[in-house]
Amino acid sequence: MIVVMRRNCSQAEVAHMVERVESLGLKPHVLVGVERTVIAVIGPERDGLKETLETTPGVSEVLPILAPYKIASREVKPEPTVVRVRGLTVGGGHLGVIAGPCSVESEEQIMATARAVKAAGATALRGGAFKPRTSPYSFQGLKEAGLQLLAAAREETGLAVVTEVLATEDVPLVARYADVLQIGARNMQNYRLLEAVGRTTLPVLLKRGPSATMEELLLAAEYILDAGNPQVILCERGIRTFENHTRFTLPLASVPYLHAKTHLPVVVDPSHGTGHTWLVPEMASASVAAGADGLLIEVHPDPEHAVSDGYQSLNLEQFRHTMELCRRVARAVGKMMNASLCYGEAATAAAVAEGAVRA
Amino acid sequence: MIVVMRRNCSQAEVAHMVERVESLGLKPHVLVGVERTVIAVIGPERDGLKETLETTPGVSEVLPILAPYKIASREVKPEPTVVRVRGLTVGGGHLGVIAGPCSVESEEQIMATARAVKAAGATALRGGAFKPRTSPYSFQGLKEAGLQLLAAAREETGLAVVTEVLATEDVPLVARYADVLQIGARNMQNYRLLEAVGRTTLPVLLKRGPSATMEELLLAAEYILDAGNPQVILCERGIRTFENHTRFTLPLASVPYLHAKTHLPVVVDPSHGTGHTWLVPEMASASVAAGADGLLIEVHPDPEHAVSDGYQSLNLEQFRHTMELCRRVARAVGKMMNASLCYGEAATAAAVAEGAVRA
Amino acid sequence: MIVVMRRNCSQAEVAHMVERVESLGLKPHVLVGVERTVIAVIGPERDGLKETLETTPGVSEVLPILAPYKIASREVKPEPTVVRVRGLTVGGGHLGVIAGPCSVESEEQIMATARAVKAAGATALRGGAFKPRTSPYSFQGLKEAGLQLLAAAREETGLAVVTEVLATEDVPLVARYADVLQIGARNMQNYRLLEAVGRTTLPVLLKRGPSATMEELLLAAEYILDAGNPQVILCERGIRTFENHTRFTLPLASVPYLHAKTHLPVVVDPSHGTGHTWLVPEMASASVAAGADGLLIEVHPDPEHAVSDGYQSLNLEQFRHTMELCRRVARAVGKMMNASLCYGEAATAAAVAEGAVRA
Amino acid sequence: MIVVMRRNCSQAEVAHMVERVESLGLKPHVLVGVERTVIAVIGPERDGLKETLETTPGVSEVLPILAPYKIASREVKPEPTVVRVRGLTVGGGHLGVIAGPCSVESEEQIMATARAVKAAGATALRGGAFKPRTSPYSFQGLKEAGLQLLAAAREETGLAVVTEVLATEDVPLVARYADVLQIGARNMQNYRLLEAVGRTTLPVLLKRGPSATMEELLLAAEYILDAGNPQVILCERGIRTFENHTRFTLPLASVPYLHAKTHLPVVVDPSHGTGHTWLVPEMASASVAAGADGLLIEVHPDPEHAVSDGYQSLNLEQFRHTMELCRRVARAVGKMMNASLCYGEAATAAAVAEGAVRA
Repeated sequence: MIVVMRRNCSQAEVAHMVERVESLGLKPHVLVGVERTVIAVIGPERDGLKETLETTPGVSEVLPILAPYKIASREVKPEPTVVRVRGLTVGGGHLGVIAGPCSVESEEQIMATARAVKAAGATALRGGAFKPRTSPYSFQGLKEAGLQLLAAAREETGLAVVTEVLATEDVPLVARYADVLQIGARNMQNYRLLEAVGRTTLPVLLKRGPSATMEELLLAAEYILDAGNPQVILCERGIRTFENHTRFTLPLASVPYLHAKTHLPVVVDPSHGTGHTWLVPEMASASVAAGADGLLIEVHPDPEHAVSDGYQSLNLEQFRHTMELCRRVARAVGKMMNASLCYGEAATAAAVAEGAVRA
Repeated sequence: MIVVMRRNCSQAEVAHMVERVESLGLKPHVLVGVERTVIAVIGPERDGLKETLETTPGVSEVLPILAPYKIASREVKPEPTVVRVRGLTVGGGHLGVIAGPCSVESEEQIMATARAVKAAGATALRGGAFKPRTSPYSFQGLKEAGLQLLAAAREETGLAVVTEVLATEDVPLVARYADVLQIGARNMQNYRLLEAVGRTTLPVLLKRGPSATMEELLLAAEYILDAGNPQVILCERGIRTFENHTRFTLPLASVPYLHAKTHLPVVVDPSHGTGHTWLVPEMASASVAAGADGLLIEVHPDPEHAVSDGYQSLNLEQFRHTMELCRRVARAVGKMMNASLCYGEAATAAAVAEGAVRA
Repeated sequence: MIVVMRRNCSQAEVAHMVERVESLGLKPHVLVGVERTVIAVIGPERDGLKETLETTPGVSEVLPILAPYKIASREVKPEPTVVRVRGLTVGGGHLGVIAGPCSVESEEQIMATARAVKAAGATALRGGAFKPRTSPYSFQGLKEAGLQLLAAAREETGLAVVTEVLATEDVPLVARYADVLQIGARNMQNYRLLEAVGRTTLPVLLKRGPSATMEELLLAAEYILDAGNPQVILCERGIRTFENHTRFTLPLASVPYLHAKTHLPVVVDPSHGTGHTWLVPEMASASVAAGADGLLIEVHPDPEHAVSDGYQSLNLEQFRHTMELCRRVARAVGKMMNASLCYGEAATAAAVAEGAVRA
Repeated sequence: MIVVMRRNCSQAEVAHMVERVESLGLKPHVLVGVERTVIAVIGPERDGLKETLETTPGVSEVLPILAPYKIASREVKPEPTVVRVRGLTVGGGHLGVIAGPCSVESEEQIMATARAVKAAGATALRGGAFKPRTSPYSFQGLKEAGLQLLAAAREETGLAVVTEVLATEDVPLVARYADVLQIGARNMQNYRLLEAVGRTTLPVLLKRGPSATMEELLLAAEYILDAGNPQVILCERGIRTFENHTRFTLPLASVPYLHAKTHLPVVVDPSHGTGHTWLVPEMASASVAAGADGLLIEVHPDPEHAVSDGYQSLNLEQFRHTMELCRRVARAVGKMMNASLCYGEAATAAAVAEGAVRA
C-alpha cells in the first residue's frame, strides 16, 4: 500500500499516519519527495486497509499494490484449470462449445436442438428451466419439468447439461439434474448463491455482470473457490456501455487479460454479447481467435417462435455454419475442438501463438 | 408496436407479417412509405411480442409504444405514493432523511449515531447487519446481533429502522426488526428476493443497480408491487460510467424523470453516489434541489475507524452542517423536512416550482 | 512516481530499473515488501515518464503521484478565478446566467430572447452563429450575419455575448463580435483551436467532451492557460453513458470536485445535460445547489419552430420560472445572482456552506 | 417518422399535429390504438424533422424510421468500397496491414521499422508527424521533418504512408507527403477538417471517437463523402467505458455491424483499443476473425525508449509473430493478405463464411 499525503499536509499528520500504520502491525516507510510526501506501507494488504488509511487526516490517496483475490490468481497457481465433465472440456487448449435454447420449452424443441448441436460439434447443451426475467409478466421457465427434459436429452446424446440456478433454495434440485451450474449475470454478486454453489461438487459457470470490473468478477469467483469448489468457468457476456446498436458491448480483450491474471478458463457468450443473430457468427469466431476456452451460444430450431431470445438465437443451419467457421479459426490459433483437430497443425499453431508476446 | 420492414423486403414477407400479427389476435395496419413499409400493430403490447415480431423474416426493427411496467406507472396512478413509518415520511412534498453507518459495529457506535442524526433532523436510522461485500474476506456484518442493536436505538430515539436484507431466507428475521427493508443495488434483479419482500407488509427501499436503466428499475419495482406490496421507495445511488474521480456517477436527472413516469417516491444516496465524504454535502443539497423525496446518508461517529465505507461517511458534525444546508434548500424548493418548514414560504416556493415546465 | 515490479521479477530487472531511473536524473528508492518490490522514484514527474517506466522489463504497474496539469491547479493558485465581462460575473460566489437560443435564426428571434432573458435575470446571451452539426445536411448557422445580430442584441440590452468558435481560421472574426469564446464539446481536444483562443484576450468557455475525464478537461484548459489566456470557464454539459432516458448523463459531482482541484469557475449546461425541456428546471436548480458558478441554458421564444434543439429549449415563460427557482436556491446556498441577493442571508448561508466538510 | 402521442392527449392536439405534418408537405396517417394514438408521417425524413415534431404539444415520442446517412449507406451502394494505394488494399476480401510507430522520431527508427514491418507482411507504414497530445507539455511531433522521413521510408520500401492531419491549415502540407490522411479520434467531429480532407483526392482513414455511436461515425464519414471524396476507411479503435483494465474497450461487433450498414471498409486498431502490448496479438487476430478489412498496429524497434505509446507498441519480433498468427486466421476466414493466400483454401473458407447467417 502506498499512502500519498496532501501537498500541504502537516508534520503532525505524517507522524499520526506513521503511528497509525505501526498500530496496525505494519511497517511505514516515509519518502519525502520534491512536491509530496509518500509513505510506503510494508506488510500484508489485509482487506479494509485501504479504506482505513484513506480516512486518516492529511491523506490524498491510497494506492494498493496487490490484487485482492487470492485463490483465483495466476500468481498463486500458474497452471491452467481445466474443467471436464462428460464430453465437455474447457481450458488447457480445449475449446468447449455449449449450445442450446434460452428457455427449455418442450420435448420436441430440446431434443431437436440437442441432436443438431451435437452433430455440429457442441459437447454441452444449455437451456434455462428457471429463468430470470426483467419483467414479472414474462415467461419464468418450466422449472423441474424443464430440468427433466434436459436430463432426457443428455440421456440420448451424452451432452453435458449446463443450466442456470437462480436461488439458494433451488441449488439441491438443480444440482440433481445439471452437470454444470450456471450463475447468471444478474446474480454475479448474489453472495449467498455463490457460497451455495461453492459447497456443491459441480463445476460452476459464472457470468460476468454487465457492469462488473475484472476485479469484481474474480472476487465473485473467489467466493465460490473459497467455499471449497475449485471448478469455476468464467464467462464474458458483454457489458453495458453507451453503444446502442448492440444489446451489450462484447469486450474480447477480457479473454487474454483474464488468462494473464487467473488460471480459471474463460468462455464467451456472443449471443447475449451482441443481441442480434446476424452478429453471432463473426463474434463467435473472433472469441476463438481471442483465445477463448469455450463458447456459449443460443440455438433454437425455430427462432421465430421461441418464447425468449429468438432475436439472438441461431437456427440449426446457422449454428452448423458457425461451428465450421469456428473450427477453422480454432485450428489457426492452436485450440483443440473435440477430436476434430489435426494434431500436426495444432502444434505449429500453438508454437506461433506462443511466440507472440505475453506479459 | 410499430414494425419497420427492411427496405428491400418482399411482398411475401409483408403478407407473412400481416398474417403473423393477425394470428396473435392483433390488428395490422400496413403503411407504404416512400422508402419503407411499416406495419402498425394495434392491440395490447403483451410481453414477448416485440421479440416475437423481431424474428419474423423481412423485419428491420420493432418499436414499442407502451412502457412495460404497469402498476408502477404514473399513467395508471397519477397521485404520488407517500410512505410513512414512525416519524419518517417520504413523498408527497415530504423529504425524509435516513442516516447512519454503513455497518452496525457496536452499541456505542449505533447509539451515538442515532442520537446525533435524530438531533440533526433525520427521521430514520440506516445500518447494515447483513453486509454484501465484494470480497469474501471482508467483514460480513453482525447479523441478528446487529438487528438487535438497531431495534434498541429505535426504542430510545423513535427513529424508523432501515436495513438491508440479502437473501430470501433472511426476510422473516430481518422483517422482525426493520421498519423498512432495503434491497441493495447488487440485488436489484434478484427476483426471488423481490418477490419475498413483496409478500411482506413493510415498505421496501429499492436501490438502483449500477447499470440498470430506468425501465429495469421500474420493472424491478413492479415485481414487488405485483407481489402485493404497494410501498416501494426507489433509490438513486449512482451508476457505473467511465468517470474515475468518483466511485460512481450520480445522475440526478433520474429524480425528475422518475417523478414523471411513476408515482413512487425517489430518494438519493449521495454517499455511494460519490464515494467521497467531501463531495457529499453539495450532492445532498443538489439532490434536494432536484426534487428528491428523501436522502440516504452514511454517518459514522469516527469514520477513520469505521469497519466499512469510512471514506464516504460524514462524521456527526459534518452531518449536522449538511442538514442545515439541505434544510435551506428544501425550503427554497418547497419541500417539507419534518416540522421545520415555515408554511408560508413553502406555499410560495411550491407555486414557483409548479410554474416551471413539466412534461 | 511509484514503480510496482512483478511478483516474480528478477534481481537483474530491479537493478536495470534503478539504473534507468538514475539515467533520467531521478532518485530511485527500492522497497522490498512481503510480496512485491516497489521502487519509489523521487524527482519531478515530467511528461512521458510514466510511459517510459511502464515499458521497462519486469514492471507490473507505474502509479503517478502528481496531477499532470499545473497552471489550472488549485494547489498552485488557491484563490478562485473570477471572470467578469460586462454584466456577467462567474466565480467567487457569483452565479452568472448565460441564456439564449441554440442557433441565431433572425433578428426578431434574438431580440425577443435577449430582452426576455435579461428581464428574467440573465447577464449574458448565448447563441450559435457557427454550428457544429452531427449531420452535414443540418443547418450550419448564419455565420457572420448571426454574429451581427448578437452584437445588435448586446447593443440594446447590455448582455455579454457568448458564442462558439469552430475553427482556428474563424477566431479573428468571432473575436470581433463575442465577449466570451465558446469551445464546444466536440472540440475540447482540438488543440490548435485551444491554442488559438489561448492567444486572444477574451474569456473562453470550455465545454467538457462527452467522454472526457476531469484530468483531460483540465489538461485542455491547460492548453489555453499555457498559451497566455488566464480567463477560462469550465462547463459541465453531460457525459455519454448507458442511460437512454436522457440525451446525456449530467454528473453534478464534477462541480464540487473541480472546485477542489482547480481555481477556474465551473458552469453547468442543463439543456444539453438532459436533452429534454421538462428536465431543465430541476437540473438547473440542482446545479446551483451543487455549487455551480453559472448556468448555460437554451431559451427560445417558440421552441416548436426552432431550427435546432427545440426539444431541450425553455420558452420565455419557462425560463422566467426557472430563474425564480434558481434564485431561491442560490440564496439558500449563499451564491450571489446579480444584485438580487439580500446580503444578510448570503452571509449566513455562506457560513453554513463553509461549515460543511471540504477535502 | 412515427409520432407517438401522450396517453391523455386531447383531440385538439391530434388535430394540431395533423395540420403541422401537412404544413411540412408530408402525409399524416392517424392510428387510434387501444391505449395511444400514433401518427405515421409519410414522406422523406428530412433533417430536423424529428426535433420539430418532438416539440409539438401532446407528443410523447418521435421514432425515426430511416438512417440519417445516405452516401455511406449500404442500401444506396451495396457493393463494398475497396481502397487501393500503392501495395495497400483495404476491403473487398483484402486485409491491409498498416504498421509503424506512434511518432516519427528519427531516420534510424523509421527506416528500421519500415523494413521490418514490410518483411513481416505490412503494406503500409503509419507514423505521426503532427501529434495531438492530451497534455500541452508532451512531445508534439517532428512536423514536416517527420513527413520527410516517412517519404524517405516509402521511397526505399514502397510502403504506402498513413499519417495524421490535425488541422485544416496543415492539409496541403500533409497531403504532399501522405498516401492516406488519418483523422484522429479526437477530431472525428471536427467538421471543417472533415470537409477539408473531403476536398482532397487522397483516401482518408477516419478513426471512431471514443464516445461516438455508429450513427455518428457514419455521419462523420458522410461529411467527407459529401465533400466529394469517396475513399473513406473507417477505423474502430476502442470506446470509453467503465472498464479500467484496458485503456479503451475494443468492441469488435462494430466490424460486422458496419459491414451490414455501409459499403466502406473497416480496419481495427488493437494498439489503442487495448493500451497494452501484451493484449495486442490476440486482439489483432480476433479483429481479423471478426471480419476486419485491415489492421492498424503500433510497432517500434525499441518500445522501452519510445517517446510515446511505448506501452502499447509491439517490438519488431512481436510484430512478426503477430503477423504469422493473423495470416493463419485470415486464411481461416477467407481473407486475402497480400499475395500470401493459397487460393484453394480461401475459396472454401469464403464459402463457409458466406454460409453463416447475415442480416
